[in-house]
Amino acid sequence: MTFQVRILKELLFMFDTSRRASPFDLTMAHDAGFDAVIPYDNVTPRDAASLTQDAMFSRSPKAFKHTCIFINGRDVKKAEDTLAAVKKAMFPPFETNIVIDPSGAYTTAVALVAKVEDAMNAHGLGGLTGKKYAVFGTGPVGITVAEILTSLDCVVTVAEPNPMLNSDYLLQHEAFRGVLERHGAYLHGVSAPTQAEKTKILKEADVVFTVAARGVRIIEKDIIDKLKATKLLVDTNAVAPLGIEGLELNDYMKELAPGIYGIGALVIGDLKYKLQKEILKEAYETQTKKVYDYKYALVKAREMLQEAAEQTIAQKQK
Amino acid sequence: MTFQVRILKELLFMFDTSRRASPFDLTMAHDAGFDAVIPYDNVTPRDAASLTQDAMFSRSPKAFKHTCIFINGRDVKKAEDTLAAVKKAMFPPFETNIVIDPSGAYTTAVALVAKVEDAMNAHGLGGLTGKKYAVFGTGPVGITVAEILTSLDCVVTVAEPNPMLNSDYLLQHEAFRGVLERHGAYLHGVSAPTQAEKTKILKEADVVFTVAARGVRIIEKDIIDKLKATKLLVDTNAVAPLGIEGLELNDYMKELAPGIYGIGALVIGDLKYKLQKEILKEAYETQTKKVYDYKYALVKAREMLQEAAEQTIAQKQK
Amino acid sequence: MTFQVRILKELLFMFDTSRRASPFDLTMAHDAGFDAVIPYDNVTPRDAASLTQDAMFSRSPKAFKHTCIFINGRDVKKAEDTLAAVKKAMFPPFETNIVIDPSGAYTTAVALVAKVEDAMNAHGLGGLTGKKYAVFGTGPVGITVAEILTSLDCVVTVAEPNPMLNSDYLLQHEAFRGVLERHGAYLHGVSAPTQAEKTKILKEADVVFTVAARGVRIIEKDIIDKLKATKLLVDTNAVAPLGIEGLELNDYMKELAPGIYGIGALVIGDLKYKLQKEILKEAYETQTKKVYDYKYALVKAREMLQEAAEQTIAQKQK
Repeated sequence: MTFQVRILKELLFMFDTSRRASPFDLTMAHDAGFDAVIPYDNVTPRDAASLTQDAMFSRSPKAFKHTCIFINGRDVKKAEDTLAAVKKAMFPPFETNIVIDPSGAYTTAVALVAKVEDAMNAHGLGGLTGKKYAVFGTGPVGITVAEILTSLDCVVTVAEPNPMLNSDYLLQHEAFRGVLERHGAYLHGVSAPTQAEKTKILKEADVVFTVAARGVRIIEKDIIDKLKATKLLVDTNAVAPLGIEGLELNDYMKELAPGIYGIGALVIGDLKYKLQKEILKEAYETQTKKVYDYKYALVKAREMLQEAAEQTIAQKQK
Repeated sequence: MTFQVRILKELLFMFDTSRRASPFDLTMAHDAGFDAVIPYDNVTPRDAASLTQDAMFSRSPKAFKHTCIFINGRDVKKAEDTLAAVKKAMFPPFETNIVIDPSGAYTTAVALVAKVEDAMNAHGLGGLTGKKYAVFGTGPVGITVAEILTSLDCVVTVAEPNPMLNSDYLLQHEAFRGVLERHGAYLHGVSAPTQAEKTKILKEADVVFTVAARGVRIIEKDIIDKLKATKLLVDTNAVAPLGIEGLELNDYMKELAPGIYGIGALVIGDLKYKLQKEILKEAYETQTKKVYDYKYALVKAREMLQEAAEQTIAQKQK
Repeated sequence: MTFQVRILKELLFMFDTSRRASPFDLTMAHDAGFDAVIPYDNVTPRDAASLTQDAMFSRSPKAFKHTCIFINGRDVKKAEDTLAAVKKAMFPPFETNIVIDPSGAYTTAVALVAKVEDAMNAHGLGGLTGKKYAVFGTGPVGITVAEILTSLDCVVTVAEPNPMLNSDYLLQHEAFRGVLERHGAYLHGVSAPTQAEKTKILKEADVVFTVAARGVRIIEKDIIDKLKATKLLVDTNAVAPLGIEGLELNDYMKELAPGIYGIGALVIGDLKYKLQKEILKEAYETQTKKVYDYKYALVKAREMLQEAAEQTIAQKQK
């Protein structure tokens, strides 16, 4: 293909802290339009620093803006440490866009928070602040939901429903330390494998997220019937049995019990997918030096929901 | 390249069970037209399941049909186990094309069988069934030739000419177990490093395949002269000394002794190459949920040889 | 993308002897125009031989010329052994272009030598031959500079300024053995961590190269003031503190002391970058069976500098 027009290629280097670069993220990056997506697996912060500088010096500062770095992997703490190393390795004028979305947890967590905010506004339940939250699941998504809510000065309890992951596990959980380091706030983490423990947490919460393992039921119908404070239950588990009894995949603000509403996994999944796509597309199309983290994702998600709301209003007025 | 027309990219994920993804297969996949070929090495069935689901959820069901999975590696059993895991991981409507061709052994084995069938038909030697076969070599190609012939109800003896791979080795050979599992038929495997052992096997066989290591002579001219039942000898070893004395790379139905014909390695190689190319091209061009295994390859090879035969007839009639 | 015009893709296989394929080299290869760049890491000569043959047989001899092999990694000896294995694995008509540039050291070393030659010619200091050289640094760049100068029958002393890498280290240094094997010439290697040792070496040298670690000062101003024989000092360290006191990144033939000139790191870096780019572009655009090693790079660099000189003259005459 010798006679093609030479246009600078859009390159994306993927630094994955896990054993294997994720086909999900690779596909998303290709679909965003990048001409070449180059994965590195088992990336440590130290690796990331040297890989970044190596990439930097291979292009002029202006051309380097057409090189994007995408940080992912299953471990939020490792991904954040890698981000810190990449940022430290760059210096003006050798700077470019960085996307961080470990296991897609950032866009999923942001989709959860933004969708809840949007739904509560639309249904006269008020804003995010001033409410109490319970998050069931201490994986990347659960921790990030808790971190976002903490950063918005909300009160959050993170509960682990898996009996294998007890309070000793939670005490040593690196992610909790990460939130403490970044926000100066202790995350309240509890082990809650039994019905009694779950009920106790649920009774205190205005909004509940179930973000534990796929195919595991977290909340039964008879618990929901006993809740009083709770206004909203949101699920991300798309594999049967779903996380919340009576709440189906595509339900949006379904009344599960008098005054208690639910949002299903695919409603969240749809927003998450569009959000990650939008972020990678923007990182591909703009030659800046942004960090596309969960903070940026939250701004973006709110914009997207705002636009969708305005379109709905405009259509109704026609 | 921001202003390009956005067309969905054709992606191919290569799950290689070996230590390194094969440059042969990577080149074939690129040449078939895929926009991005993404190799994974050391893939286990368990890896394959999670990689497949990860890939599935990154595209809509319709778009996922533009993602192809290509399974390869040196070990037929591992590749088949990986195929089973990939098939199990997919569910409607998230299904797409899967190509399996471990070390290219499936297309080589099919090329051997189909070419022999075609040559015997053309030379009045009858069809594949009802004949006795000897296969020298217990690698992926040998085992697959034996498996295809077994599935066609032929009687096959698989002989290992390498003295290091004795009958103990054959007893533990995973591939033999694989054939038993899949076809309920025991493959007859024998250790045959000596002239006497080889001669004994050859005397019983109508058709003989030499598919052992490169650069190793399996059958000497003086053995061929003593054979009576044998009609056809076929070689795949393209590195001197070739597998069958007196049979050159490009020979097609050369008479090696009265009534005994030979087909050389490059005649088989040429069909194999076209066949693998055709299969990858079809997997690239069609958005279906086919499994391109050796069964499919056999149908395809027969079609290709049929077409070639018809073209030859048409040209003669002009 | 089914209806595209089918043109043969330009493929580049990157055999990297290090743990990770270099983002620098990957970017350079993409920017040269290759349609797909396929990295292999931890490549041994044995791997390289089998990967090469695997790649060879996946295309017709004519098409294989559109497959390029790029050998790199941090270890010059390993890269040369890999090159030997790749060359041995190919045979007519299955031959194609091979680029070797371990850690970019070949193009950096050639840029150093060619720029010095050009500068000395332009400033009436004579040619490369007949002069004494000191090279500070025994990494890939230092060894290659020494090897090139040795091949041009120059007298070279290689000095290691790092106290951790003493004379025992130098005795066992594989690269020294490599030069001996390839040129039948012993490289003179000395450990020179102290001021006194450095001064002794500098006093003997007409031309001095500082090619040690980034951010390490090698030569202080007060040593330079005492030098008599020395005509030219050249640095490659672009991270402060720079290698030679008083010599800035973009200096070209700056007078550091009476009759002693200096060339800064970015002047060398600029030529190196253009040279590597030019070589990969030529390997991409031509379908031959060249080995693009440091010898070829030297021819190319001299051409590039000659052209630049002629353009300067032409512009002055206008």
